[in-house]
Amino acid sequence: MAFPANSIGLVQPQQFTFAQEEPFRLESGATLSPVTLAYETYGKLNADRSNAILIVHALSGSGHAAGYHAGDDKPGWWDDCIGPGKAFDSNRFFIICSNVLGSCYGSSGPATVDPDSSEPYGLRFPVVTIGDMVRAQAQLVAHLGIEQLLCVAGGSMGGMQVLEWAAHHPTKLKAAIPLATTARHSPMLIALSEVGRQAIYADPNWNNGAYYTATQKPDAGLAVARMVGHITYLSEESMHQKFGRRLQTRERYGFDFQSEFAVESYLKYNGNNFTRRFDANSYLYVTKAMDYFDLSEETGSLAAAFAHSGHLKFLVVSFTSDWLYPSYHSKELVGALTAVNADISYLDIQSSWGHDAFLLEVDTMTKLIASFLERLAREEEVALPVISNQ
Amino acid sequence: MAFPANSIGLVQPQQFTFAQEEPFRLESGATLSPVTLAYETYGKLNADRSNAILIVHALSGSGHAAGYHAGDDKPGWWDDCIGPGKAFDSNRFFIICSNVLGSCYGSSGPATVDPDSSEPYGLRFPVVTIGDMVRAQAQLVAHLGIEQLLCVAGGSMGGMQVLEWAAHHPTKLKAAIPLATTARHSPMLIALSEVGRQAIYADPNWNNGAYYTATQKPDAGLAVARMVGHITYLSEESMHQKFGRRLQTRERYGFDFQSEFAVESYLKYNGNNFTRRFDANSYLYVTKAMDYFDLSEETGSLAAAFAHSGHLKFLVVSFTSDWLYPSYHSKELVGALTAVNADISYLDIQSSWGHDAFLLEVDTMTKLIASFLERLAREEEVALPVISNQ
Repeated sequence: MAFPANSIGLVQPQQFTFAQEEPFRLESGATLSPVTLAYETYGKLNADRSNAILIVHALSGSGHAAGYHAGDDKPGWWDDCIGPGKAFDSNRFFIICSNVLGSCYGSSGPATVDPDSSEPYGLRFPVVTIGDMVRAQAQLVAHLGIEQLLCVAGGSMGGMQVLEWAAHHPTKLKAAIPLATTARHSPMLIALSEVGRQAIYADPNWNNGAYYTATQKPDAGLAVARMVGHITYLSEESMHQKFGRRLQTRERYGFDFQSEFAVESYLKYNGNNFTRRFDANSYLYVTKAMDYFDLSEETGSLAAAFAHSGHLKFLVVSFTSDWLYPSYHSKELVGALTAVNADISYLDIQSSWGHDAFLLEVDTMTKLIASFLERLAREEEVALPVISNQ
Repeated sequence: MAFPANSIGLVQPQQFTFAQEEPFRLESGATLSPVTLAYETYGKLNADRSNAILIVHALSGSGHAAGYHAGDDKPGWWDDCIGPGKAFDSNRFFIICSNVLGSCYGSSGPATVDPDSSEPYGLRFPVVTIGDMVRAQAQLVAHLGIEQLLCVAGGSMGGMQVLEWAAHHPTKLKAAIPLATTARHSPMLIALSEVGRQAIYADPNWNNGAYYTATQKPDAGLAVARMVGHITYLSEESMHQKFGRRLQTRERYGFDFQSEFAVESYLKYNGNNFTRRFDANSYLYVTKAMDYFDLSEETGSLAAAFAHSGHLKFLVVSFTSDWLYPSYHSKELVGALTAVNADISYLDIQSSWGHDAFLLEVDTMTKLIASFLERLAREEEVALPVISNQ
């Protein structure tokens, strides 16, 4: 196919495997060996390796953030913002995105074959945390020969990883862009995670996570979990704009139990679609990692968690209609970062798109991120990479 | 047992059956014959039958609104507000509450035996609307010898019935108390209904609604549906107050998939508990009735829907943290009622309890409702009932 003009074009998935001899120790105390991360890179590393940006993804994301895989007609999940001349400009920066530990897009997770048993781990895969995900990413970054990232950026669960990088690996980056996120998973977020997990547990095909060789997978449970998710990514207002009380195909109420409202069709379509691309066990592991995320837990306060992050530059963004990660979470974060004298740009963007806004408000995000990165590159004297004429 | 001093004490469930010869015609065009409503009454009717108040219940409620059934140690669902000296004072008013059509607490619903087949209806039970529920209640009220109700009151789905009474039966009541409700079910509410229904459909024990004689019922699906509901009845703030990130029994994270956060235990407990008291098919029917509710649909505007309701007195209440039925729904309603010159008292109550506030803010609700009813009784010259010395 012909790729759009401002696209990265065809990209190649890559894999990095480590902890083959020395097992990777997790926060729980359990170990994993080996560990594989699937990742992609866009753009070129400059001569002094100072232009690397790590993009971190949300719950259902992957390492395929931009460009096209052979045969696909849809680009990576953040293609709107990554590419030549885009918010994350691949002409200027070397951009890395890896699939998180525990997920199902090529990184080690519950669907991975356990070398000890030669069967998929299932629930024998150890529970991982946001901290574990980030320490695995740090190994990948080191493997790519990068001592210090220019920036780490991401929204939602991606934002949690950004904050984990900033709090626990502050010498390994210069700037952080946490979007529509929180430094502490709230009880509301835990409740929504748990309902999704309960929907999966309730599916008899889940079979305690041992379904990889079965003909029936826990698709029904996973679809319900995803439907709950999709409701939380929208706002009341965006639902009115997008669907209202419109019927999908009928002229009049059917007085039966077919999905008939447009919003019902939307949920059903997205729920079913998700089962073709995501693993139910990974849904359990990744949501559990989010639930455990609380940067203030160890130190007692958020400011103390960022005690060594005062030299970093932050672009913090929240959205007014995001009821999943309400703006006050970002404001608390900004308060803590102010207390350690970090350089902070914060915007609470007026948007009706709810949590999804961080992916949908492309023009606003492009302006914000591009100008933040431009200032950063200027202040840090980041050289352009040498572009080949190929 | 000894009943609390301000309790109605022991109450007797009652049943009223109609449409035995002439079938009851539903909004869908389908008919039902016979129709049974389970109900209870508290207090006494006065001499001119002018002191009757109809209480209408929410999604999972029943006709048992106050007092105790023999052997029970928990009273009816709105006992906090119904009884001697309470908001709905049973010393002054004759209070009626009936289980809605389609539910499972003694009124006709999908679990009822179909006289044609001598088997439970299941999904052959016709889909009912809020309008159908209210027309059935009107038959009960007439059967009790009451030409005009002093007031109809209820919250959530109860509030929808209140508004249906006011819009479509305006000569049959003098006042209406819709609490934490809407005149038009929003796409967000439809989405949440549909997720609950999909969780039930996904349970293989649901078996297209034909499970009444099976040993396994669709409890797992119904429990997930209820968990979604419970999240929506709370607010972010009340979840922080009630649970925070507290672990239920553990001292430290378990790094497994047991429910460990207090909020998880709460959801699981309530979800499982619900399966012991509610019928999965009724969950489908009652949520569907709510989804169809849109008073402005027929007339094109909400004000037009209340064209004949201008003589009524309204007490409209919303709660600031209710994100399920946000305050602006009530404000729209108040706008429409203002346009028809109705007598309106409206309060948007500052509360952190979310949608549950209409049941939990007992002191505030008592003051509001009691003073509204006192004014109403004075203005309408409602005589006290004759209290026997028994």
